[in-house]
Amino acid sequence: MKLIAACLIKIAGTAMILEVEQMVEPKLHKLRSILEREGLDAAVITNPSNIQYFTGVSVGGSILVTPVDGSSQLLVPPLEYHRAMRLSRLRDLEIRPYYKYNLKGFEAPGLIRKGVYEALETVVEELGAKRIGSDLSASPAAHAERVKARLGNRLEKDIAEEIARERSVKDPDEIEAMRNAARVAEKALSKAIGELKEGISELELAGLIEYYMRMNGAEEYAFPIIVAFSENAAYPHATPSGRKLRRGDLVLVDLGARINGYCSDMTRTIVFGEPARRTRQIYEAVVEAVEEGINAIRPGKTGSEVDSHSRRILEKYGLSKYFIHALGHGVGVDVHEAPRLSPGSKDTLKEGMIVTVEPGVYVPGLLGIRVEDMVLVRQEGSEVLTSLQRIWVV
Amino acid sequence: MKLIAACLIKIAGTAMILEVEQMVEPKLHKLRSILEREGLDAAVITNPSNIQYFTGVSVGGSILVTPVDGSSQLLVPPLEYHRAMRLSRLRDLEIRPYYKYNLKGFEAPGLIRKGVYEALETVVEELGAKRIGSDLSASPAAHAERVKARLGNRLEKDIAEEIARERSVKDPDEIEAMRNAARVAEKALSKAIGELKEGISELELAGLIEYYMRMNGAEEYAFPIIVAFSENAAYPHATPSGRKLRRGDLVLVDLGARINGYCSDMTRTIVFGEPARRTRQIYEAVVEAVEEGINAIRPGKTGSEVDSHSRRILEKYGLSKYFIHALGHGVGVDVHEAPRLSPGSKDTLKEGMIVTVEPGVYVPGLLGIRVEDMVLVRQEGSEVLTSLQRIWVV
Repeated sequence: MKLIAACLIKIAGTAMILEVEQMVEPKLHKLRSILEREGLDAAVITNPSNIQYFTGVSVGGSILVTPVDGSSQLLVPPLEYHRAMRLSRLRDLEIRPYYKYNLKGFEAPGLIRKGVYEALETVVEELGAKRIGSDLSASPAAHAERVKARLGNRLEKDIAEEIARERSVKDPDEIEAMRNAARVAEKALSKAIGELKEGISELELAGLIEYYMRMNGAEEYAFPIIVAFSENAAYPHATPSGRKLRRGDLVLVDLGARINGYCSDMTRTIVFGEPARRTRQIYEAVVEAVEEGINAIRPGKTGSEVDSHSRRILEKYGLSKYFIHALGHGVGVDVHEAPRLSPGSKDTLKEGMIVTVEPGVYVPGLLGIRVEDMVLVRQEGSEVLTSLQRIWVV
Repeated sequence: MKLIAACLIKIAGTAMILEVEQMVEPKLHKLRSILEREGLDAAVITNPSNIQYFTGVSVGGSILVTPVDGSSQLLVPPLEYHRAMRLSRLRDLEIRPYYKYNLKGFEAPGLIRKGVYEALETVVEELGAKRIGSDLSASPAAHAERVKARLGNRLEKDIAEEIARERSVKDPDEIEAMRNAARVAEKALSKAIGELKEGISELELAGLIEYYMRMNGAEEYAFPIIVAFSENAAYPHATPSGRKLRRGDLVLVDLGARINGYCSDMTRTIVFGEPARRTRQIYEAVVEAVEEGINAIRPGKTGSEVDSHSRRILEKYGLSKYFIHALGHGVGVDVHEAPRLSPGSKDTLKEGMIVTVEPGVYVPGLLGIRVEDMVLVRQEGSEVLTSLQRIWVV
């Protein structure tokens, strides 16, 4: 069952398609599997991305309580109650607002007139849960401490790593959502590349690409876009500035959309004008490093093995000292999640994982070139989910 | 000494001014004051916003170590090394990259060939620090645990609340940065209001406003913009959708820019067409509640007192059951920081604090109206930093 509502939107004389794809199924059953496997009788989930993954509901100030059998409860503050009700598509999830102070007339079924930690304790006591798995290690420390103070030794095990492992392997509907998120970013970037002109600033180009992502349906950005020209691109995590584009510049763009709660992540570097000989050499080396990394991906390989494949290419060209970060990372509900592709990573690739491959060369004061694809681990190797061409000279 | 680089940028036929204001002075001396007051010999600061506040450097994966006397050290991963060096303007701050695995040739002065926690322990041992204040309660729990495992009983006190209190009272240069951030958002919103037309979607309007914020110099957004029409505005934290604008709709926009590391936060609700009688009544009640809240602000008042002033206005009109959140919050490096203006808040206002006043009425399925200003607490009352008119009927 797939629902596509397509509508045509006119922008700058060009028709663009806005697609609203079917939403991803909440993965609450996977939380139950973890509880069964670990012999726990309930879960207390506090990390917003985990709550979104399990319930499809992403609202502030919420805590999820899931018994191994029976209905789950999502505690939410009053301001998020109606949105949580609208987002929820699970029959066995009860949305319960909590508040401690008088909001003068706010009423809702299941309302708990207590602060969030007291409300949580009440719900856990109602359930009679005694062996609780939690993801408190994935929450802010002060928040985790307050939950611990209420639940005490009923908290048996931290299951944040088990959850991260579940999340790292994607179902077909998650892969589809991420394909869509990738497409939104690609369309926006390729349209903006067609409009590159001398004098445009990093800030304006950032705004333009974001605008095109919005026009293609981006409800959220996966992360703040990076737009950096030439010497600014030597900072891997540059923020856009007033720097204006000149002939011969490099244009590095690292962008992602978030569609139905799932992220995309992609980087392209565009040569605006005629590349210098040295620039062209580096560009080709980086693209070769991307290809080599992608070709190394298959189930069973470790993150450090894949990283070393790309890194060796840059070493061959004497560029490895300019490659100052890890090769890649998992993507999903969060733009950075398990597994890691890095020199020290022992994470093992599995079918269904989605990772980035993003080698870069950063020469301080001069230039940065990074090319990044988002890659699905397949039984027989890999599939690149970001289909935009890698080399751009415009 | 004030440096303004102004340049004219042509956009859609209208000249807009892009201003780059002087940067805010890092507040490292305030960290030293806390250490002296608390009888501590060093601070270990892990929260990114705290690090930005004290050093002006905002890069991922960093930890700040500040002795009560002598130079501070900022541990950064290699990929952030050059950016941290560029951002740093403190003489007594040493930027030290760390890494555990071989990055094949990366070299830098002060390099520590260890993982971040081991590097931190090394630096603390070099300093001989024995009574350390930390902000670990303001960091992710897993990160805090790893730091604790390395530093053990050398960690004497959590000073996250002391830091939050320092941050809540702004210096003149911080106020100036936030004025600029407010102006960027105001200019963008008022330009977009002038271009409202039937059929524009929430997504497109969001993209348009963001584009105008970029054109006005927004390096970052303070938070993801909210653009919600009529019934969607009944969700206080709506995300933009494909919903198209019709005559008679309400347009709620909640937006903020981040300039020189400081945020703005403002909401306006625009009536597009002729408002229904009931809509007009609610609109006027919300604006009255904003004004009443602002008038209640002065040093010495508590957060709950100010909240109750606005809340009483909505109660008078029988609307308080639709006002389902706190009245406001502090703004600064983070868009949400101390103090809180809410029914239960015991926080006391002080001169120099900057808070939002943002009452709202949310009628499920029908409409939401919120009006939000950013307000500076002054010796004799308050000053509104967001100068855009409150009532819009276009």
